[in-house]
Amino acid sequence: MSGASPDAEARLARVRERVRKDELDAVVVTSDESIAYLTGFRPLQLERLFAVVVGAAGGGAVIVPRLDEGHLEAVPAELEPRVYDAGSNGLPELVEALAGARIVGVEEDHLTFARSRALLGHGFDLRPAGAIPLGLRGRKDAAEVERIRAACSVVEEVVQMTFATMREGDVERVVNARAEGWLRERGATGAHALILFGENAANPHGSPGDRVLARGDVVCADISACLDGYWGDMTRCATAGSPSPWALAAWEVVRRAQQEATVVAVAGRRAQEVDAAQRRVIESAPELGRCLHGAGHAIGLAVHEPPFLVPSSGAILEEGMILTIEPGIYERGIGGIRLEDDVLVRTGAPELLSLLPLDLVEVPV
Amino acid sequence: MSGASPDAEARLARVRERVRKDELDAVVVTSDESIAYLTGFRPLQLERLFAVVVGAAGGGAVIVPRLDEGHLEAVPAELEPRVYDAGSNGLPELVEALAGARIVGVEEDHLTFARSRALLGHGFDLRPAGAIPLGLRGRKDAAEVERIRAACSVVEEVVQMTFATMREGDVERVVNARAEGWLRERGATGAHALILFGENAANPHGSPGDRVLARGDVVCADISACLDGYWGDMTRCATAGSPSPWALAAWEVVRRAQQEATVVAVAGRRAQEVDAAQRRVIESAPELGRCLHGAGHAIGLAVHEPPFLVPSSGAILEEGMILTIEPGIYERGIGGIRLEDDVLVRTGAPELLSLLPLDLVEVPV
Repeated sequence: MSGASPDAEARLARVRERVRKDELDAVVVTSDESIAYLTGFRPLQLERLFAVVVGAAGGGAVIVPRLDEGHLEAVPAELEPRVYDAGSNGLPELVEALAGARIVGVEEDHLTFARSRALLGHGFDLRPAGAIPLGLRGRKDAAEVERIRAACSVVEEVVQMTFATMREGDVERVVNARAEGWLRERGATGAHALILFGENAANPHGSPGDRVLARGDVVCADISACLDGYWGDMTRCATAGSPSPWALAAWEVVRRAQQEATVVAVAGRRAQEVDAAQRRVIESAPELGRCLHGAGHAIGLAVHEPPFLVPSSGAILEEGMILTIEPGIYERGIGGIRLEDDVLVRTGAPELLSLLPLDLVEVPV
Repeated sequence: MSGASPDAEARLARVRERVRKDELDAVVVTSDESIAYLTGFRPLQLERLFAVVVGAAGGGAVIVPRLDEGHLEAVPAELEPRVYDAGSNGLPELVEALAGARIVGVEEDHLTFARSRALLGHGFDLRPAGAIPLGLRGRKDAAEVERIRAACSVVEEVVQMTFATMREGDVERVVNARAEGWLRERGATGAHALILFGENAANPHGSPGDRVLARGDVVCADISACLDGYWGDMTRCATAGSPSPWALAAWEVVRRAQQEATVVAVAGRRAQEVDAAQRRVIESAPELGRCLHGAGHAIGLAVHEPPFLVPSSGAILEEGMILTIEPGIYERGIGGIRLEDDVLVRTGAPELLSLLPLDLVEVPV
């Protein structure tokens, strides 16, 4: 829950405009983040259906389980509440809210096959329309930028605390627990630390375990937190004791890749161009390791949002988008180096939302 | 990631048997937990496609992004790895893995509308088949029961630490952060604390904030953790100082509801009967508050799994299922009391997987 947004009504109006323009009768929004964007309350979905319906002709509804009716106070008045009880799965209430509509847009990357079948069975003609809420969510307004900046500032602080308190013999799992605790104490409603030591850091999706910090290890610390509904996400690296020649060289390559990708993150360029810029640099140093992922992704109400900065994405960057720029290089058995900042896309050079230097920190051991 | 399961091959054989029996050509498993069940590795999906394909005629495949190929070592050899690069969204590789199949089962509550459209566009006839992996996952084997018992034991410890360290003036958010930190330090890869004070506890899905613990508050502490791939989930309550007459009466009603629901959690009974047992007791005390949710849900690789113990569920309970039993009563402006244990369904009385008494703890203030 992120508190009611003062902009919720303006946002609903913009959705309705797009619904008309796309010649839909209505759109059904089902993802947590899009619901939060339109209503100011973020559901805890699990298996339960939550939905916001916006009709082309005006009107709309919000469908929530009885358990969550307490959140409805925050919801714009033009959304008629339809609360369902434990005997329903919410679909009958959704179908009722759609009465009169035939062509219905849905969030195609969120709506499940089962729910889409149920709606098709009621005669609705479903169309992919995730671009409607995601398009609006992509361009952040000034208040959203400040929330992400504030989240980054908490993440920065915890990255620094992490490196400042780290000692030889520390257990990976405990270091991660500590960082998440600091994030939560600072108000994070979502907190994720992925701090990996030595060869574990060679897997960008490894999971922290019993590995103990030893002299010579690289430490790759990817830390993200959600504050006031919005995420910040940063990665910095360190070495336990003085850095190896590999760590120094890898860090230098990644720093250059991050810089070259960042300068391309400009309104009008394509997502794939940002990726190409980092990939070119990382792949120029195959003796140091491999390029295992894209340049980054948009961030906001969700920690991963489109556009994704990957070779296949021709999405055009727009002013107001906030992107992570996070190239990395990974060498199996040795380690990984990744550097990540969140940047605001503008017509000129992007604005960095965090100020922490990219330095390869030396942890005393 | 929970480490390779020694049972992965036997599980694949059982899936294949069901695929044949249901006259499917193949099944596509896409949820994190079902993939973990069949392969021993738990993906970090975000927007990326992961899938396991099991064919009726033998053979199968596992589709993962390049980023995660490091996890493939843990996967049974009969699943052919199909690793896709940043230029693909994984669907072409999934379609290739399904070559020759026409009738394809999918996890209907996980597969997205977009992916189902893409598969339908390739001529596959998709059928809901989530019951195949969920049916197998529902009946836990002895090793799974022990993992859930171990997770409960960590949760028990943290519930006790939470109440033992709580003092007047504590901030809700900080108390939650502390509990999650303790869970992580004890090896939890997933940790969720929902500890709510006073009137905040009247919303079973509230979120911890700046509320400060005051004399007379009830504290509703719902704590869950994932250890070694499996979840434990418990709720206990306390009062700051001596309990109010409302707290005592509400606790007594919920304790009785929990007891009456538990004795119905027996193989052969229906999910809705367990719910009815708690609902009858809670609804007999409307002067104390309301019944806002079902009796509980199954738990295992996911914190919420079917069957859900709700009025609409005619699912028949089977030996080996593990269920949360968690009735609660909620009074707006006052608070909420919920008591939750995890129990193993048998032919006789269910086995409690946690030993912590249900006592309404008095926190000294």
